[in-house]
Amino acid sequence: MCPVVGVIGGGQLARMMVPPALELGVEIRVLAEVEGASAALAATAIGDYTDAATVLAFARDVDVVTFDHEHVPQSVLGALVDAGHAVHPGPDALSVAQDKIVMRERLTAMGAPVPDWSVVHDAEGLAAFLDDHGGRAVVKTPRGGYDGKGVRVVSGSRDADDWLAAAGERGLLVEELVDFRRELAQLVARRPSGEVRAWPLVETVQRDGVCAEVFAPAPSAGSLPAEAGALAQRIATQLGVTGVLAVELFEATDGRLLVNELAMRPHNTGHWTIDGSITSQFEQHLRAVLDLPLGDPSPTAPWAIMVNILGGPTGATMPDRYPMALASHPGVKFHSYGKQSRPGRKVGHVTATGTDLDDTRAMARGAAQFFEP
Amino acid sequence: MCPVVGVIGGGQLARMMVPPALELGVEIRVLAEVEGASAALAATAIGDYTDAATVLAFARDVDVVTFDHEHVPQSVLGALVDAGHAVHPGPDALSVAQDKIVMRERLTAMGAPVPDWSVVHDAEGLAAFLDDHGGRAVVKTPRGGYDGKGVRVVSGSRDADDWLAAAGERGLLVEELVDFRRELAQLVARRPSGEVRAWPLVETVQRDGVCAEVFAPAPSAGSLPAEAGALAQRIATQLGVTGVLAVELFEATDGRLLVNELAMRPHNTGHWTIDGSITSQFEQHLRAVLDLPLGDPSPTAPWAIMVNILGGPTGATMPDRYPMALASHPGVKFHSYGKQSRPGRKVGHVTATGTDLDDTRAMARGAAQFFEP
Repeated sequence: MCPVVGVIGGGQLARMMVPPALELGVEIRVLAEVEGASAALAATAIGDYTDAATVLAFARDVDVVTFDHEHVPQSVLGALVDAGHAVHPGPDALSVAQDKIVMRERLTAMGAPVPDWSVVHDAEGLAAFLDDHGGRAVVKTPRGGYDGKGVRVVSGSRDADDWLAAAGERGLLVEELVDFRRELAQLVARRPSGEVRAWPLVETVQRDGVCAEVFAPAPSAGSLPAEAGALAQRIATQLGVTGVLAVELFEATDGRLLVNELAMRPHNTGHWTIDGSITSQFEQHLRAVLDLPLGDPSPTAPWAIMVNILGGPTGATMPDRYPMALASHPGVKFHSYGKQSRPGRKVGHVTATGTDLDDTRAMARGAAQFFEP
Repeated sequence: MCPVVGVIGGGQLARMMVPPALELGVEIRVLAEVEGASAALAATAIGDYTDAATVLAFARDVDVVTFDHEHVPQSVLGALVDAGHAVHPGPDALSVAQDKIVMRERLTAMGAPVPDWSVVHDAEGLAAFLDDHGGRAVVKTPRGGYDGKGVRVVSGSRDADDWLAAAGERGLLVEELVDFRRELAQLVARRPSGEVRAWPLVETVQRDGVCAEVFAPAPSAGSLPAEAGALAQRIATQLGVTGVLAVELFEATDGRLLVNELAMRPHNTGHWTIDGSITSQFEQHLRAVLDLPLGDPSPTAPWAIMVNILGGPTGATMPDRYPMALASHPGVKFHSYGKQSRPGRKVGHVTATGTDLDDTRAMARGAAQFFEP
């Protein structure tokens, strides 16, 4: 029998699950938000993922439900579970990824290293936190943020008045502004029966809150990979995550390894695995949510460098520039998400692999330059 | 703009073009023979590829027409070209792959090394050829053969009477029975503007006329790779092949390198490239037929071994056996074509990569054993 995976959400993460589904002979069906979504090829339904009836109808003929994003409401997730559907990751785990306050509470409860944090409800609370943390802090809305949205650096107690007014009783998360050497990401996959596999720790470079580049493995990381791998495995297991878990980390200047964010799905910092690992994060996610044995996540080359491609004002697509880009970089892998180009929107990525870090980085950046807005 | 490739035929070769199409952001549409074909996910039409009106309607909105097989009639190919469609490979090149007598004529005319051959119309002609070649020969129907079908070893002049009666004026191809050390395959890709790229020469093992295993690169090949690469490049260029060209070769015991067959499409002997080469044959075929710059065909590991999976009498599919197979071989890549299992039918393949030939072969064969009929 051919297992059927249903993916809620039709973005590029769902799109990138399609190749390994075809390879493994797993059927994949997507509930997309709109016609012409990035994952349109596999879309069998178009509808609103916040509507329980829509999602239940989509789930009727699939063996497992999984996600392109973390925004499906708990009420809808609960309806799926109540109707007897396998849902991976499950509602409990997803609740931690959906709410940054819950995330901080749970991570703190399990003793995972996180930045100092608090929940504030008014300017006085924020003022107190600022006083205790050198006059600067990061304020985050508990829900709905991504790619830097819903995150603000503040230095005055009135700098978050608008968000505080909108936040209501729930309040806002406020965190110490971590002075970090660099950002890292540790991805693991876990299947319901408990097996966990970890990819190498990677270094990520963010620009304007958006992932710009990923270096796999993280250069000169010393004992950090062992520490991060054990930490991510513990988080995945204790939160009961199924599928891919991305743990975004700070390497602080004072030496601390701190958890910044969690994502419970394939993640931008794992796109390099398509071309640089024996088992990509997308194949591993499919295996994990189907509770199949996980694949070997070992890298296939000493270095893999991924550079994101963002849309620009001209609306040019990546394929428009393929004649020049492919000719000058025959060894680079080009990924275009089939999305309309808009300024700042992630429309694709390139990955280079090689044996020398500097050469590989130059190759990836050189290829990406052809697509600069 | 997103280029659109139209593929005639919905088999596993069309299916395996879908992942690189998604990655590159190239739209792929398939004209499948039936519902539920291997490439059903990308099928936008179901119809008869021998019907010009069906094929012309399919081709209307694509930028280039290419193929899952070589069986589209010349009349239909001609109609496509007359209507102004880009067709790759083109009708002239395909005519050579469609007819084994034409193939022998053209290869002989260009001085490519081939087994001794002749065209026979009757038992007397066959008797004369047998007399000249030690009493044994291979008889082939000019058209329609694949996977050992349409090929017969004969040792008596009446052994092909049935085929001769059916062959009519065209006659049959008769060839020397080559005493070979092993079979090899050289794949290249060529784009219309002339660029050619070659993968490493591989060794292929056939069982009952069907490809069973492929070793990439061909072990202990001495100067053969250079010879085969130059030969395939010459054939591709002189025949004007566009897309992937597979040159199946004999390494004869007397040292000759002889062309056995040609295929003008991705080929079973190139499936290892999906997991073992920077640019797979399927991605390269898409690039080539779109006249985009070709990718680097270098291998990503010292050895890649592919083992075909054939269907058995139980009708079990590969995914039925994934729980055991994936657990015991986490580093092997599993490919299932989503086809109904029938005895002897190609339903999938596995590929292992590694640094030691024996270990890699053992790994691929061990993984394949889980799917033995």
